[in-house]
Amino acid sequence: MAASPDEQDWLGHLQDRLPPGPVGETWVGDDAAVLVAPDGWILFTIDSAVAGVHADLSLVSAADLGWKALARAVSDVAAMGGDPWRAVVAVSGPPDVDIGCLYDGIGQAASVLDCPVVGGDLSSAGQLVVTVAVTGVVSAGENPPVLRSGALAGDRIWVTGPLGRAAAGLRILRAAGARGAPGARGAAGQGAGVEAGSAERSAAVSAHARPVPRLAAGRSARRSGATAMIDVSDGLAIDLGRLADASAVSVELTGVPVSAPASQEEALGGGDDYELVICAPEAVDLEACFRYDGIQAPVEIGRCGPGPAGSIRLEGREIDRSGWRHWSG
Amino acid sequence: MAASPDEQDWLGHLQDRLPPGPVGETWVGDDAAVLVAPDGWILFTIDSAVAGVHADLSLVSAADLGWKALARAVSDVAAMGGDPWRAVVAVSGPPDVDIGCLYDGIGQAASVLDCPVVGGDLSSAGQLVVTVAVTGVVSAGENPPVLRSGALAGDRIWVTGPLGRAAAGLRILRAAGARGAPGARGAAGQGAGVEAGSAERSAAVSAHARPVPRLAAGRSARRSGATAMIDVSDGLAIDLGRLADASAVSVELTGVPVSAPASQEEALGGGDDYELVICAPEAVDLEACFRYDGIQAPVEIGRCGPGPAGSIRLEGREIDRSGWRHWSG
Repeated sequence: MAASPDEQDWLGHLQDRLPPGPVGETWVGDDAAVLVAPDGWILFTIDSAVAGVHADLSLVSAADLGWKALARAVSDVAAMGGDPWRAVVAVSGPPDVDIGCLYDGIGQAASVLDCPVVGGDLSSAGQLVVTVAVTGVVSAGENPPVLRSGALAGDRIWVTGPLGRAAAGLRILRAAGARGAPGARGAAGQGAGVEAGSAERSAAVSAHARPVPRLAAGRSARRSGATAMIDVSDGLAIDLGRLADASAVSVELTGVPVSAPASQEEALGGGDDYELVICAPEAVDLEACFRYDGIQAPVEIGRCGPGPAGSIRLEGREIDRSGWRHWSG
Repeated sequence: MAASPDEQDWLGHLQDRLPPGPVGETWVGDDAAVLVAPDGWILFTIDSAVAGVHADLSLVSAADLGWKALARAVSDVAAMGGDPWRAVVAVSGPPDVDIGCLYDGIGQAASVLDCPVVGGDLSSAGQLVVTVAVTGVVSAGENPPVLRSGALAGDRIWVTGPLGRAAAGLRILRAAGARGAPGARGAAGQGAGVEAGSAERSAAVSAHARPVPRLAAGRSARRSGATAMIDVSDGLAIDLGRLADASAVSVELTGVPVSAPASQEEALGGGDDYELVICAPEAVDLEACFRYDGIQAPVEIGRCGPGPAGSIRLEGREIDRSGWRHWSG
């Protein structure tokens, strides 16, 4: 294939080769596929976590990689406003992988995120790849799953929390050069080559090693009437750009909430935060809805405009939509 | 982990770390997980196809690998007697992979096997790994999905076709040293370093490069009252051994049908055939059921006995249950 392939190009390849879904279903192109079931909607998504790409095993543990693999797929369900239902996990890797540790992390995430793993597959490969497929559900009679493509000019844009924390956590871990087993992560946050630790540093390291999808926020936003959602997996600029493309709106950001130890660059381009970006009509008081549901207050970051489609401006200036990408080639 | 890990050990690891499923569901340990849904059962399975492990890209094309990845997962659904419903595909690999060709093969399999791909993920990795998760369905009011664990002493054992074809096909391709694009496969079957071609040779090469799961046979067997099923993915000896272990029966084989260009060793240990092994009570005339449904006649290969559990005897002699394994370490 051509040099510098991009995930969007690949998804385009896939879309060109596959029939479109029936009316009412969404297949390739959103965080998760939306399928119609007798009692509502089924969401279906798959994500891989590759050692050396999504997690550096000299900095975090195999358990952290396992956790992240499951969390990434569950976050796709959160970004549609769904509840995770069941997961299956495929592991391919070399024989020296600490598989017990890897499965511990997967099992911990499955338990915390209430998404039991019901099956698995194992293959030999030169590099560790953990792939998780997750099904999710949205019940009939409720607001349907929230797509990327429903935002309208005039909608307010919110994010479920400050950004850049995971990127800052990775920076802290790299500086410490410590392994990311829970104990070592503590060390990375509290000394061992880094300055005196702080709650923010620990939270940043944890955000990188053990991200927690925003399931409750996604559900609440869907029920509150959100028009579009996406999770921040590749970075705000990239992911918000995808939403703006899919919805054919422009975006005018008034500001971006930066997490304590992160830079603005990390907040815009760092990725791996798994916060949700939510679009909702002017009339929806998302803050009040979240307060009612006991969820941490969202931060309003801007508004959707009529165009040009896909353009993102921050405080009046067009921003670079590139950022961290899975494919480095 | 310990040296020479075995997939069964890995699945044991996974089972130890995860809660068991509720009554009526089967989680880790069968071809596919069986989940209870309002209108019947949902099957859920995941399989990876790794370049260099499941397919040698100097012998077959990226399209063949894509086909095989989807077919392997759909075969798990066939082995439960279900209908495939939807698939999601994760690809990780190096930038020089011919992704268009890969997706062509996936799309062709999705179309032929009636299992649309509804989503995908892409990551960078050093080695090409194609992972497919498939959901399947069995309707309420019908016989439930057929597990590995239901065989009883006295059951007759059938296989849906002669074995060893895929292993023979791989041997033919290796001898020819030809690439496996459809044209080159024709050449491998019809000349180019191999003796004069034959329909059997072409069929063997095709069985290796483009296996077709036995969906109709699995469905018919379930409806006919099969007690246990498994697909022959790793080799008859290994897979029948798994069924015998799960059902706590012994197996007395009277013979093994060997496909024309294959040796008995290839038929017993070759794997990748994706024929189904079916156990059914004496009273079930599986041949008549298959004839009624217009399916190629199954071959009776033996009977289940009371024990020792897991033992497999062929014409009175215990056979080696080892065979081709995914994990070579």
